[in-house]
Amino acid sequence: MQFDRIRLSALHQKVMSAEQATDFIKDGMTVGMSGFTRAGEAKAVPQALAHKAKTQPLKISLMTGASLGNDLDKALTEAGVLARRMPFQVDSTLRKAINNGEVMFIDQHLSETVEQLRNHQLKLPDIAVIEAVAITEQGHIVPSTSVGNSASFAIFAKQVIVEINTSHRADLEGLHDVYIPTYRPSRTPLPLVKVDDRIGSAAIPIDPAKIVAIVFTEQPDSYSTVSVPDEETQAIASHLVRFFEQEVQAGNLAKNLGPLQAGIGNIANAVMMGLLHSSFEHLTMYSEVLQDSTFDLFDAGKLDFASGSSITLSERRNAEVFSQLEKYKNKLVLRPQEISNHPELVRRLGIIAINTALEFDLYGNVNSTHVCGTQMMNGIGGSGDFARNAHLAIFVTKSIAKNGAISSVVPMVSHVDHTEHDVDILVTEQGLADLRGLAPRERAKVIIEHCVHPDYKAQLQDYFDRACHKGGHTPHLLAEAFSWHLRLEQLGSMKR
Amino acid sequence: MQFDRIRLSALHQKVMSAEQATDFIKDGMTVGMSGFTRAGEAKAVPQALAHKAKTQPLKISLMTGASLGNDLDKALTEAGVLARRMPFQVDSTLRKAINNGEVMFIDQHLSETVEQLRNHQLKLPDIAVIEAVAITEQGHIVPSTSVGNSASFAIFAKQVIVEINTSHRADLEGLHDVYIPTYRPSRTPLPLVKVDDRIGSAAIPIDPAKIVAIVFTEQPDSYSTVSVPDEETQAIASHLVRFFEQEVQAGNLAKNLGPLQAGIGNIANAVMMGLLHSSFEHLTMYSEVLQDSTFDLFDAGKLDFASGSSITLSERRNAEVFSQLEKYKNKLVLRPQEISNHPELVRRLGIIAINTALEFDLYGNVNSTHVCGTQMMNGIGGSGDFARNAHLAIFVTKSIAKNGAISSVVPMVSHVDHTEHDVDILVTEQGLADLRGLAPRERAKVIIEHCVHPDYKAQLQDYFDRACHKGGHTPHLLAEAFSWHLRLEQLGSMKR
Repeated sequence: MQFDRIRLSALHQKVMSAEQATDFIKDGMTVGMSGFTRAGEAKAVPQALAHKAKTQPLKISLMTGASLGNDLDKALTEAGVLARRMPFQVDSTLRKAINNGEVMFIDQHLSETVEQLRNHQLKLPDIAVIEAVAITEQGHIVPSTSVGNSASFAIFAKQVIVEINTSHRADLEGLHDVYIPTYRPSRTPLPLVKVDDRIGSAAIPIDPAKIVAIVFTEQPDSYSTVSVPDEETQAIASHLVRFFEQEVQAGNLAKNLGPLQAGIGNIANAVMMGLLHSSFEHLTMYSEVLQDSTFDLFDAGKLDFASGSSITLSERRNAEVFSQLEKYKNKLVLRPQEISNHPELVRRLGIIAINTALEFDLYGNVNSTHVCGTQMMNGIGGSGDFARNAHLAIFVTKSIAKNGAISSVVPMVSHVDHTEHDVDILVTEQGLADLRGLAPRERAKVIIEHCVHPDYKAQLQDYFDRACHKGGHTPHLLAEAFSWHLRLEQLGSMKR
Repeated sequence: MQFDRIRLSALHQKVMSAEQATDFIKDGMTVGMSGFTRAGEAKAVPQALAHKAKTQPLKISLMTGASLGNDLDKALTEAGVLARRMPFQVDSTLRKAINNGEVMFIDQHLSETVEQLRNHQLKLPDIAVIEAVAITEQGHIVPSTSVGNSASFAIFAKQVIVEINTSHRADLEGLHDVYIPTYRPSRTPLPLVKVDDRIGSAAIPIDPAKIVAIVFTEQPDSYSTVSVPDEETQAIASHLVRFFEQEVQAGNLAKNLGPLQAGIGNIANAVMMGLLHSSFEHLTMYSEVLQDSTFDLFDAGKLDFASGSSITLSERRNAEVFSQLEKYKNKLVLRPQEISNHPELVRRLGIIAINTALEFDLYGNVNSTHVCGTQMMNGIGGSGDFARNAHLAIFVTKSIAKNGAISSVVPMVSHVDHTEHDVDILVTEQGLADLRGLAPRERAKVIIEHCVHPDYKAQLQDYFDRACHKGGHTPHLLAEAFSWHLRLEQLGSMKR
């Protein structure tokens, strides 16, 4: 154990095993844990908690930043620990329990959870479990590879368990910028005006007396599951790069585009990779998760600065990046997700937001969360925080899935996460639809022309024509609006 | 003509008839006009334009603040002047043309139109037509009963026509606070931190050389169509007042609640009227339209200050209020709708947002715009600007319509304007559903218990039970999700 990581020596006596620390977590409690997009989650304590729950009743309401790594949501679900879970997850075992109605999942805009806690909209956490690289002389907590909701959880909770993870370099310290908005009714403007502004503190300021346990661990973060761009995701990237070039040429976008946000996952990562071979320079990011593409863009000299809430890398890039942290450190900042995703800042900075759609419809409504309107995938994440206030709200997806049995472009989405009012640009490997300033009927035309897979083009055109015949500002045939989804459920394919 | 209302005498030569002024508006132009919720719209020029279009080809793209009074949208539609219209309307003739696909209507969040113009997302207006009470010594325009988008339209347009309306008191001057956000990438925080802060100028600052015509008119604003609260809307108000009282008692809300926003129309107006007989004092409003209820609350000594973008009163209240303007003037401010509805400010101030739903569903999704998913009513207006970032996002509606043939609570809304992620509280005359922190299945239970009309309770419970049997995080039966709407279309009632 590296006691030098606990610089307030009075706290040395709080060091204990993860098993011992779980004694502070009682049945029925609301627990706030660190962790955002598989980065910086507390590891030893939740694992010990899952183990303990096998022998005694232990159900909690668990809130995190976003998704956890190391199969923690799986272990907690299998042990029956989770009564409630918010605001995001990506685990297949937990997902099954959510869809069976066994775990109550509250799917939230990632910027809003701590605001709702602060304003008594949600029950405050009884206890927080926060991964750290160190505790300062003041007893403040230095986060690791994510900030997420950790700062507010630790501030709100009556008790805090700190997991010091020695697999992370101690010099992650200095990477973080912890800013907490002032309370209403006297809240002041968030003072951030540039992506690289630092407006907060390097550690989470709490009263060290609240730290009831310190656990050492050396278990690393999980790698991201992002894969190498394929033909379709590269095509999506090319369409978007060409669009950006045209917008710059027309004088509508700055030469460096403006701050970029990219959602988690393969497609958004591929789009950012596409900028590697573009003519754009001095790019900046104001995003939530920083993935492989961020560091590839740094290495290519394309990217000047990246602000995020977490760093989540593939096996390929993880060791490379963290072994050369000094190379990147002055170009990086990690912020609370409330700040990385804050609508005030998204609007002020003029962010170009690139997020993944599960499906979108004729009129530009986007479903990010529910398969066939019922089965939760992961959650809305930060996509709504960004899309609503972005300079450009862009959604990307492959035009088909499951070997063509599913069209990602449908007559009507089976669940709406982003309404027609919030979507500017849609891109599939087929092409790009620019919906700005268009009425619904006009949007339908450009979506059919540019985004739909050829296998579904005639079928969608037919629906649109017949719906227009019936009339309306947003023409639909309600009796058929979900016929594609129903055909998929019944016959295994949306194809007619 | 009152030439003293044009204090820059060099502009006196620009005075002309409305007919002459229309010569500046050419076929194919994009025109920005003043007007927000039937208040402060340019009147003489659009009327002359409609007249002129009877004899010569004249089609324009028209953008305003929100709705126009004096049947202007009707006249312009009947004359075939409108090719495109944004961002809101309430006229039945225009509505019909929109739903027939004859006028392309772009239904936008009211805070976003000028932001999209500023950022080259929409075509800039070629010309602006702005109602004013005066032109200052500097040639700046003093708006009348609304600010809406007038300031940015006048700033963006190459030419400006000013309509000086002498039916408005000249001492409306001083009521307005015109603030224009600075340009990206160096935009600074909006400096407003309290509802009564003044951060801008009293008039719209433009180069007077852009003023190509000044037209005098004395046609008054239309009265609002708001009606006296009825039994149902009073019941909605009582449920909400009781909820506020409980929240204050629990320490979750301040004693004066925090800044209130109320959408336009009877129900929101009735809710505000409900506060008249409550125990709350020192209320404030940070809203878009200030209706009768605002002034009733002032008169009752309940309301300390109201910020809006327009004043729209019923016949009952109009003369009373404007004849005693001095009584209210220091408690009022009118701002550009970008500022009255700005997400940065809505979030900072912690607004309680009360807006009307057309229908909502089992899981808390709200439809504000489309009858049976296809026919546009008015538009989303500012409801999305407020609901997304509000401290409390409240939607109100009567539980049934058309003598019970329509249930406002349905299995799945036929159009989504506000997603489940953005809706905190739902109220009908039946009761109030508090959705905060609940998973979809839990929301369904409280909505069925508290909001649905007894005539539809069993029917909705039956849908929910069978949907749960099928499973999913958000249980639905896609084959039946719109069966209520289809039954209404086919049999004239949603009742089974």
